[in-house]
Amino acid sequence: MERCERFKNNPILRPSDVRPTRDDFIVECLLNPGAFEYKGRFGLLLRVAECPVIEKGWVSTPIIDPDGSTRVFRVKSDDPELIKTDPRVFKHRGQAYLTTLSHLRLAWSDDGVNFAVEPEPTLTGEPRLENYGMEDCRVTQIGSEYHLTYTAVSSDGFGVGLITTSDWRTFERHGLMLPTPNKDCAIFPEKIGGHYYCLHRPSAGGIGTKNIWTARSLDLVHWGDHRCLARPVAPWESARIGAGAAPIKTPRGWLEIYHGATLPTCYSLGLLLLDPDDPTKVLARSKEPVMVPTEPYEIKGFFGNVVFTNGHVVRGDAIYMYYGASDEVICGAMMSVEALLESLKF
Amino acid sequence: MERCERFKNNPILRPSDVRPTRDDFIVECLLNPGAFEYKGRFGLLLRVAECPVIEKGWVSTPIIDPDGSTRVFRVKSDDPELIKTDPRVFKHRGQAYLTTLSHLRLAWSDDGVNFAVEPEPTLTGEPRLENYGMEDCRVTQIGSEYHLTYTAVSSDGFGVGLITTSDWRTFERHGLMLPTPNKDCAIFPEKIGGHYYCLHRPSAGGIGTKNIWTARSLDLVHWGDHRCLARPVAPWESARIGAGAAPIKTPRGWLEIYHGATLPTCYSLGLLLLDPDDPTKVLARSKEPVMVPTEPYEIKGFFGNVVFTNGHVVRGDAIYMYYGASDEVICGAMMSVEALLESLKF
Repeated sequence: MERCERFKNNPILRPSDVRPTRDDFIVECLLNPGAFEYKGRFGLLLRVAECPVIEKGWVSTPIIDPDGSTRVFRVKSDDPELIKTDPRVFKHRGQAYLTTLSHLRLAWSDDGVNFAVEPEPTLTGEPRLENYGMEDCRVTQIGSEYHLTYTAVSSDGFGVGLITTSDWRTFERHGLMLPTPNKDCAIFPEKIGGHYYCLHRPSAGGIGTKNIWTARSLDLVHWGDHRCLARPVAPWESARIGAGAAPIKTPRGWLEIYHGATLPTCYSLGLLLLDPDDPTKVLARSKEPVMVPTEPYEIKGFFGNVVFTNGHVVRGDAIYMYYGASDEVICGAMMSVEALLESLKF
Repeated sequence: MERCERFKNNPILRPSDVRPTRDDFIVECLLNPGAFEYKGRFGLLLRVAECPVIEKGWVSTPIIDPDGSTRVFRVKSDDPELIKTDPRVFKHRGQAYLTTLSHLRLAWSDDGVNFAVEPEPTLTGEPRLENYGMEDCRVTQIGSEYHLTYTAVSSDGFGVGLITTSDWRTFERHGLMLPTPNKDCAIFPEKIGGHYYCLHRPSAGGIGTKNIWTARSLDLVHWGDHRCLARPVAPWESARIGAGAAPIKTPRGWLEIYHGATLPTCYSLGLLLLDPDDPTKVLARSKEPVMVPTEPYEIKGFFGNVVFTNGHVVRGDAIYMYYGASDEVICGAMMSVEALLESLKF
């Protein structure tokens, strides 16, 4: 198998494949799915980003109110206190807003390539921690329990939310496991030396860069012993790096497919190999990215030049790697564990 | 007793009272001490900020090297890649540096007013997490054990470090309990409803303001369930707020003396009263600050217009409140628990 072979029918899911939650909303983007296996089927937990139907002369976005209902926040396009810098965010009177509100929604497949999206949201933001939405969920299976780590976005910032489920119907919320500003958190699939571990990506706060960190835990809910694992090194990741999905256990160590970005923004994917007995140690790292945006759907879209993964299913040597392209559509690629490990031998 | 009465002999400690760690260093500032009682005596854990003896034509700062030794990093004052924005920080080739390196040092007193400073550092930065130093330590006594939460500053950012001691001679390090960017962390002095709690202050990451948050723990090392507790409200705290020392247990709830700052910078102190059974709930909050910089030593200094507290000793109704003034000298004030609580009845 090649190191990285895109699905022939990419993109496998587009915004038009998903029903909006309200008649006055449109699904603007599908992004960055978590991935897992359940009862022999492939599951994706899509990030569905919605916005109000475009209304001329206004900038508007959905926000979740304290009572749990979704309200449309509107500002006149010519308001002097409105600042639009990016398709993803705007500022009004000093407060930042997202242009879309994301929820998480399940999609199922028997072959890992053809997915059917559920007609309703699976998880929507709760008012206190997620009034700006839920994004980019990683799914880690430990025993029969699935641990969902996602970006919980609110008017107070973005942290890492934790939810568990065993049946994908009932969900238990554990609040924020990592405080703002943090995202890109993936839990390792088993205990290592008596502790659970995760990768996470705190924002830089004036000193240092946007690095990948580790933390450890005894119960998966409370975390400590935070350490910086890896910093941007190569030109293709000069602006920031962040973890993808849960590291893959291999005989040579924990294999992590991570993202790196440049400024102006181009998101690519790279590889880290971590010590099997101490995942706070990097054994090897790809010199060149394993995937860069090259296809039309990766270069042009809501936010172009992006390939971003936070979900995969591993069957033997085969990695079914799912990724968001251009912050707009869902794609897949096949990778080989062996070939990836081989590429890390210098 | 008045609500807040400054010590008559303020400042009680100045940089000239402290011996530098090396002949080629000077103690530039004494800052923000943690405070505690041990064997009937008052203890302060001072932040001692040192810099190299000034050398004309150079900007220099001490940094801790991987082997634990302290190296002087020097840049020519006219280097085009040098950016000086603030007396506390500079940037060179995109990397931020502090102008001083801080360690923590004990000072002891029998009366709470006259302190003798130990001749050597008590705790110095360890290379991996604190190569830029240790700052602003809070001390919380739980049983016979003291829990030290301090800002661990490194070239990767600033997080909250945790150290424990029972005898103030031997110390156990527990790494970073909260990742970058975070500071101003104070642990509550007892379990509440089965959990330990702390206050902390993550930096804003593009959304929201610099707020005070809570977290909870079962073992004081691993933390979760992070929640935003309080946001800047009043004009005197418009730029940021952050916790002071450990909340004081009172019959009406947990009393917290916190800091708020404006931009341009002026740091004042205010009060929060938290639910005795659920410290994630604010019962009352001071409308006006309880202390603002008014004295000459609070208005002028290394970084003027600052009163900042992270240490106090409570004896009955009396609070011996210690604070840093102008980021340069250590001061004290007496406060009355009753009077502070009375001021929160509107």
